[in-house]
Amino acid sequence: ASPNHPIRATLFPGDGIGPEIANSVKQVFNTAEVPIEWEEHYVGDKVDPRTESFLTWESLESVRRNGVGLKGPMATPIGKGHRSLNLTLRKELGLYANVRPCYSLEGYKTRYDDVNLVTIRENTEGEYSGLEHQVVRGVVESLKVITRQASLRVAEYAFYYAKAHGRQRVSAIHKANIMRKTDGLFLKCCREVAEKYPEINYEEVIIDNCCMMLVKNPALFDVLVMPNLYGDIISDLCAGLVGGLGLTPSCNIGEGGIALAEAVHGSAPDIAGKNLANPTALLLSGVMMLRHLKLHDKADQIHNAIIKTIAEGRYRTADLGGSSTTSEFTKAICDHL
Amino acid sequence: ASPNHPIRATLFPGDGIGPEIANSVKQVFNTAEVPIEWEEHYVGDKVDPRTESFLTWESLESVRRNGVGLKGPMATPIGKGHRSLNLTLRKELGLYANVRPCYSLEGYKTRYDDVNLVTIRENTEGEYSGLEHQVVRGVVESLKVITRQASLRVAEYAFYYAKAHGRQRVSAIHKANIMRKTDGLFLKCCREVAEKYPEINYEEVIIDNCCMMLVKNPALFDVLVMPNLYGDIISDLCAGLVGGLGLTPSCNIGEGGIALAEAVHGSAPDIAGKNLANPTALLLSGVMMLRHLKLHDKADQIHNAIIKTIAEGRYRTADLGGSSTTSEFTKAICDHL
Ligand SMILES: CC(C)[C@H](C(=O)O)[C@@H](O)C(=O)O
Ligand SMILES: CC(C)[C@H](C(=O)O)[C@@H](O)C(=O)O
Repeated sequence: ASPNHPIRATLFPGDGIGPEIANSVKQVFNTAEVPIEWEEHYVGDKVDPRTESFLTWESLESVRRNGVGLKGPMATPIGKGHRSLNLTLRKELGLYANVRPCYSLEGYKTRYDDVNLVTIRENTEGEYSGLEHQVVRGVVESLKVITRQASLRVAEYAFYYAKAHGRQRVSAIHKANIMRKTDGLFLKCCREVAEKYPEINYEEVIIDNCCMMLVKNPALFDVLVMPNLYGDIISDLCAGLVGGLGLTPSCNIGEGGIALAEAVHGSAPDIAGKNLANPTALLLSGVMMLRHLKLHDKADQIHNAIIKTIAEGRYRTADLGGSSTTSEFTKAICDHL
Repeated sequence: ASPNHPIRATLFPGDGIGPEIANSVKQVFNTAEVPIEWEEHYVGDKVDPRTESFLTWESLESVRRNGVGLKGPMATPIGKGHRSLNLTLRKELGLYANVRPCYSLEGYKTRYDDVNLVTIRENTEGEYSGLEHQVVRGVVESLKVITRQASLRVAEYAFYYAKAHGRQRVSAIHKANIMRKTDGLFLKCCREVAEKYPEINYEEVIIDNCCMMLVKNPALFDVLVMPNLYGDIISDLCAGLVGGLGLTPSCNIGEGGIALAEAVHGSAPDIAGKNLANPTALLLSGVMMLRHLKLHDKADQIHNAIIKTIAEGRYRTADLGGSSTTSEFTKAICDHL
């Protein structure tokens, strides 16, 4: 990649505050001279009135072709037949692992100042199978499905990630004392992969105990890998430890090596278009995308500029207790580049 | 109840540190002249060699007859055919609601000082159905079962409890955006009950968001009611906010109005018999049992004596950073009565 031969990456600005924070990313990436050319597509709750489609083939193809993308928040279109857009994207692009680094931000005070962990969530099955039925009136069942294939795949990714990022330990989170077969299979797959990585410590932690330890002493954890619903719960819990979804990045890894980074917070329709949104989660997600592309210098530069801006505290958006606009905060980051 | 006509209550001291902390309860209750006569039964991992039984009919009958009991930690006997003893008790006694008040203890510092909430967990079904099977090699399923009957029952109890304890709000915790039918039915039942309690605020919170809010600002919550696994996770998370399972009491409500209070921490075999265990969780569980019996004066006296002893900080067990023995800590509480 070079300024003359840029890497093409897909950009889904999304709904609500999405376009504003996506603009912030474009500005910061431009200033840092990141050799990326964005291919922008609209995906979100504005259904095309002619086709009634809310997700075009071109948008999906763009991510598949480019192999990398960045996604803002999307509202789910209202009306029958529309599954959550996030779930649809996960399924269509085979996004099997959701990776969320979660670390205390210098200068942004929460009750915790020593968090530095990564949650890796299986993203395709488990409690999200969609298989549910009523057995008789007043008795309903949901199926949790765990497969060897998906468990091995996410476990492989977790250990690969741990090694590539110099992390020491992988903890598999489960409730196999109750769900012996499903979570048991998940653990079995983690153990198989762990054997191939003798240099990485491997442990198994029951989810209730894990949550208690996380709020008491999150520094005990390094990389956590887990089935879908536990990942949904624990990744949000961890985000809460360091300030919430407005500050925490995420990246989805999919079939064929696709990486779709995303801000997992909502589209905040109440402040949309008002130049008030905090672009940090989307910016840091963009940084994850750069690391995936091995553009580590650019990633470091932008990461440091964001951290410095927040640490200085002069320019902060309202959600962080400041009064800066999105543009002012973005400019402050650019000034640090 | 009076000293001459005491209330009979069942006591299961349990395994490991169980007998020591149960002794502490007996001592404190004696000193406070609580009109209770204990009916002590052994339930735990010591299987009767003649019958190979690990749970006698008499133990169960005792709780059923007395209607109230207190239970220490139990290890689960090792060997095939033995389900968790806790699960067996829940099933045999129809213990449908697990109630766990969780509040910041004056003088015992954690990262949070404003926690004052109660989790009410459905305790009989959901993800704990035990129904699992392998579909084909490498594909396993677990069934989550939600019934109208069990959901209504726990919802009724949650609102009854909220009203009886002067609480303002009940939050139903769910993931009905994914498990529309099972968690959807649970919510439907909560809504039905909520309508009968217009004086209590009712809200629904998605579990991932709930966990994030709990670690950011637990003061937002009052009474939380939820299906089995979410209750397992969130009750431990909340315990972690105020110091862990060694400090948090619990009480199970069962069919026919049975109340079995219990310390939910482990049996700590490593320190068993060494006079080092912290009896706080079992003592506070005993206090919950007293409240259930409407012995509020005694409950208040003992509760205050425990809190004062911990707040003073002169006598604390090792788990709380002190060097007192179980007996010294117990004596200090008795001295405050
Ligand atoms: C919106 C919802 C379907 C989604 C999920 O449960 O996966 C969200 O909570 C997330 O974590 O991306
Ligand atoms: C030991 C285990 C079966 C149990 C549960 O999952 O219910 C425990 O975690 C609890 O909360 O009492």
